[in-house]
Amino acid sequence: MSTSDPYYTNLTIQDTFKQPDHPSINFSFPKKSQNMTVTTSHKQQKRIIIAGGVAGGMSCATRLRRLDEFASITVLEKGPWISYANCGIPYALGGVISEESKLHVQTPEKIQAWFNVEVLTNTELVSINRADKTVVVKTPEGGNEMQYDVLVLALGAEPFVPPVPGLKEREGVFTLVTLGDLRGIETYLTQQHSEEKKKRNAVVIGGAFIGLEAAENLRLREDIDQVTVIEREGQVFPAQADREMVFPLQKELTKNGVKVHVNANITSVTSDSVQVEGVGEVKADLVIVAAGVRARMDIPQQAGLACGKSGVKVNRYMQTTSDKNIYAVGDMVETYHQVLGRDRQVALAGPANRQGRLAADHICGKQTKYRGNVGTSVCKVFEKAIGIVGASSLQLQRTGMRYESVIVHPVNHASYYPGSERLMVKILFDPESGRLLGGQVVGGMSGMVDKQTSVLATAIMGGMTVDDLEHLELAYAPPFGSAKDVVNMAGFVAGNLIRGDVEVVHASDFAEGRQKLEDYYVLDVRSPAEFAGGHVHGAVNINIGELRERLGEVDRRKKVLVYCAIGYRGYLGYRILKQEGYDVVNLDGGFRAVKEGGYDEKLQDLQV
Amino acid sequence: MSTSDPYYTNLTIQDTFKQPDHPSINFSFPKKSQNMTVTTSHKQQKRIIIAGGVAGGMSCATRLRRLDEFASITVLEKGPWISYANCGIPYALGGVISEESKLHVQTPEKIQAWFNVEVLTNTELVSINRADKTVVVKTPEGGNEMQYDVLVLALGAEPFVPPVPGLKEREGVFTLVTLGDLRGIETYLTQQHSEEKKKRNAVVIGGAFIGLEAAENLRLREDIDQVTVIEREGQVFPAQADREMVFPLQKELTKNGVKVHVNANITSVTSDSVQVEGVGEVKADLVIVAAGVRARMDIPQQAGLACGKSGVKVNRYMQTTSDKNIYAVGDMVETYHQVLGRDRQVALAGPANRQGRLAADHICGKQTKYRGNVGTSVCKVFEKAIGIVGASSLQLQRTGMRYESVIVHPVNHASYYPGSERLMVKILFDPESGRLLGGQVVGGMSGMVDKQTSVLATAIMGGMTVDDLEHLELAYAPPFGSAKDVVNMAGFVAGNLIRGDVEVVHASDFAEGRQKLEDYYVLDVRSPAEFAGGHVHGAVNINIGELRERLGEVDRRKKVLVYCAIGYRGYLGYRILKQEGYDVVNLDGGFRAVKEGGYDEKLQDLQV
Repeated sequence: MSTSDPYYTNLTIQDTFKQPDHPSINFSFPKKSQNMTVTTSHKQQKRIIIAGGVAGGMSCATRLRRLDEFASITVLEKGPWISYANCGIPYALGGVISEESKLHVQTPEKIQAWFNVEVLTNTELVSINRADKTVVVKTPEGGNEMQYDVLVLALGAEPFVPPVPGLKEREGVFTLVTLGDLRGIETYLTQQHSEEKKKRNAVVIGGAFIGLEAAENLRLREDIDQVTVIEREGQVFPAQADREMVFPLQKELTKNGVKVHVNANITSVTSDSVQVEGVGEVKADLVIVAAGVRARMDIPQQAGLACGKSGVKVNRYMQTTSDKNIYAVGDMVETYHQVLGRDRQVALAGPANRQGRLAADHICGKQTKYRGNVGTSVCKVFEKAIGIVGASSLQLQRTGMRYESVIVHPVNHASYYPGSERLMVKILFDPESGRLLGGQVVGGMSGMVDKQTSVLATAIMGGMTVDDLEHLELAYAPPFGSAKDVVNMAGFVAGNLIRGDVEVVHASDFAEGRQKLEDYYVLDVRSPAEFAGGHVHGAVNINIGELRERLGEVDRRKKVLVYCAIGYRGYLGYRILKQEGYDVVNLDGGFRAVKEGGYDEKLQDLQV
Repeated sequence: MSTSDPYYTNLTIQDTFKQPDHPSINFSFPKKSQNMTVTTSHKQQKRIIIAGGVAGGMSCATRLRRLDEFASITVLEKGPWISYANCGIPYALGGVISEESKLHVQTPEKIQAWFNVEVLTNTELVSINRADKTVVVKTPEGGNEMQYDVLVLALGAEPFVPPVPGLKEREGVFTLVTLGDLRGIETYLTQQHSEEKKKRNAVVIGGAFIGLEAAENLRLREDIDQVTVIEREGQVFPAQADREMVFPLQKELTKNGVKVHVNANITSVTSDSVQVEGVGEVKADLVIVAAGVRARMDIPQQAGLACGKSGVKVNRYMQTTSDKNIYAVGDMVETYHQVLGRDRQVALAGPANRQGRLAADHICGKQTKYRGNVGTSVCKVFEKAIGIVGASSLQLQRTGMRYESVIVHPVNHASYYPGSERLMVKILFDPESGRLLGGQVVGGMSGMVDKQTSVLATAIMGGMTVDDLEHLELAYAPPFGSAKDVVNMAGFVAGNLIRGDVEVVHASDFAEGRQKLEDYYVLDVRSPAEFAGGHVHGAVNINIGELRERLGEVDRRKKVLVYCAIGYRGYLGYRILKQEGYDVVNLDGGFRAVKEGGYDEKLQDLQV
């Protein structure tokens, strides 16, 4: 075998590395205790160890092999399974995914055969010795030391378990992240069920993605009776979405028999219940903890790798900032948020996969930068769904960024075509430049929430403004969309606001005390029948079609708050009144935003 | 009433224009025969005439009113209806839209009441006198002359009726564009049916959007027996989409009982049949002509307005290039195609609406440029759908633009979640810069074809490259998408191609004679079971998992054509072989692209 450097001379590789003596086939790492030293041959075969065998780790491993047929690639996975679909686990709990086997994307055997990647399951990374370029691993048989040229950390994140007295001590408390969690819950419920043959009560701690997916799927189980979601903050998706956008989800949960407690502080946990401040005892045979995750930073920190507040520090090539031979990807790192302009940890499958791929690129000499993320996500909640992209109001406020927002309620496709549905869409944008900062979309399961979210995500990643949204030419035929598409509509309304063609106030402004109804002459420009079905407290009703004739009835001495059902006739009313010299604002999103957003108690005066 | 200029002094408008003597209420145009002359007061109230009361015209009228409360706005519509949903007409024919009334978006009364816009139906524009700024209109009662300050033409396009002997002479021949067409067909079929109580045979001339929507909807009617689509070119959607992308649609049509003849030239038409060259007689009690449209240019041409080959010439503000007081919008104009870089006529509702809005903006002093279009469209064909954006191969070839393309078959959402479906996606891009030039997506009706198309449209309008597609962070949860989304997958494959990580040949290269199978050592890297179910003619089967061990079996003297089911294992095989020194190409889109694309007869060797 030649001692030249075949790694860099692709064209003659076949002459130097020939089957069957190709060293990368079934290669096993030399143990340091065997006292094998690194020889010059190591340059021929880069030894890459990847710790973590799910999204980021496996994407990295398979990409590495495609780029480098001759590297030695080993994946260490502390659990018994690799490359499984952890996003599907809540659905396996509910039986929507009928067999656990469907969640296994790859087996170690197939990875070995297709990619010539050695997969060591039940093998946990224990420590890193950066000076020697070695790692210590723990296996059921004991410990090992392994040599690397490049180490990729894809250790993921640890579910956060709140420090509530009694929680860790009792039985029947689970997280819902791994196949092990899933099996644990199944076993526990089967035991409980067989003992007493009665349905059990479940409590889910945490009202974001996994918590709500868990709640829905628990409701689908025959052995579960009551399901209660307990969220510490004032709403579900407290960080990710705005109050009025999640209210429809909270209603959907309630409608489907899930009790939801927000602003709910758990004070203690007993063997069959949790105590919630202000609520009392909630029965809990099963507790699912879905209160967020924390990046696994202990091993990197012990190895002296720089870590931020929320994750390991990496450059745009996913290389740790402390060691050019160590990369880190996925839930354990901090990456750049394109909207918020700062580094933060993100636990999403898409970014993890992409980062694994980019780490592989860089290891193989390709300079592909990670562009950061925008937090695109979507969640099914029974027959409703929410899509989220970019920053929420809370995130923008915390970052100190100025923003404006509008709410629109367009139909998902032509309303005359059967099955159309009205969505609720909020976009957030820079009030000066119009740059799109965030989008939230709520609708039914046939409402194409994911479509609108993906279009908005593409727009944000393309640096688009609300003006650009107006001009997007999106797919339209009656079964699929509208000539003025959902995203166009949001752009039109936001564009009008930025250009000064309309001024708005938000229902939330009143609900949260930034505005007072009594400061306004409140004008409802809907039909008398719509008005009779409920209206903003104290409103006067003049149908839009009569407004020009009845202008004299509108009190000029007060600022006029005009509104309609969804905002369009209110906008027409605004334009008429403004040009006639009135001081006027339109209620953003109309009365529907009041009702859907759960601001009824503050603004609505039901007269049914 | 003040003689000052209230149009430009918003703040005092209420003092000068007061109800009930507001001149814009129920204003009727002075007839020139009455010898009224233009006085200084015309500046107070801009007189705008809009000819055409559907998409572009009505969008313009309503936007105008919102921007200018005091202009006089009159819409002339030659038909009896305004603002109706002509895109829904095929579905009303099939009863999917159960009542014609659902297609009426607005009535003249509501437009008058909400927008104070005078709508004159049954009023046809006959001629324009640009020197006098007058138009002549024809009404059932006779003729009129009307004065304008600004004229907006939204006359639409005329369905093209091929000059086939006998076609225009016989009964039962209809286009399918207006409510009049719909009623005509209904009346005709009802008569036919009541006379003989038997089902009728229908022929549709033209296999693009309206033609295929018509075919599907005719099949839904109880009074229709056979439906035949006759397309002059070699495929349906001949200009818009590529051969392999429409083959699944042609199969879907056939599966649903629609006969499709392509390359079919109609030589003559009799009272109950059409004669098709090479096919013979096709029974035709009803003939729907859907062979494209031509911009209505006669009136503009007579008025001396510059016209291009396909439509009236306008600037980016939709102002005709010949007369600053005349605007033109919608199907009758030529606009800039963002991908092809040239002006052409486009008959799409989205662009028409947008252009109407921008014309209104410009008339009111706002400088908002039309950005051109990218031809985004989507069409339902029974339980399949096709989405199209940007340019097709044919359009790029005709324009002389270099391009490369890839086909991928990703699932619409996580395959382990129930109801997932494999799509067929083709993207076209600049082989140097990677700029996205076009996208075509085919799938089932639950396949989210419109979503992928809209994301690709946003990417094209944002000037994105295939590299950018790789980095898009799109909405993912198992019920909605994949961590590596459909559009990401297309980006990965195209990016690999551009970066030289893979070379491909296309099934179409073989089918169209640019490549010959006998020049290759054809290597099928699927499983033996897959291979046995059909494979490329002459292929040798080595399962990807055994390729490294069995490399010696691969003939080094020939170029290797490697392929698998959808392209991924083929790519793995390519990477192995390439790095081992073989001359190799991957079959783009795999064997599925051969089968789905209808290239079976050239490439497939079925061994079932």
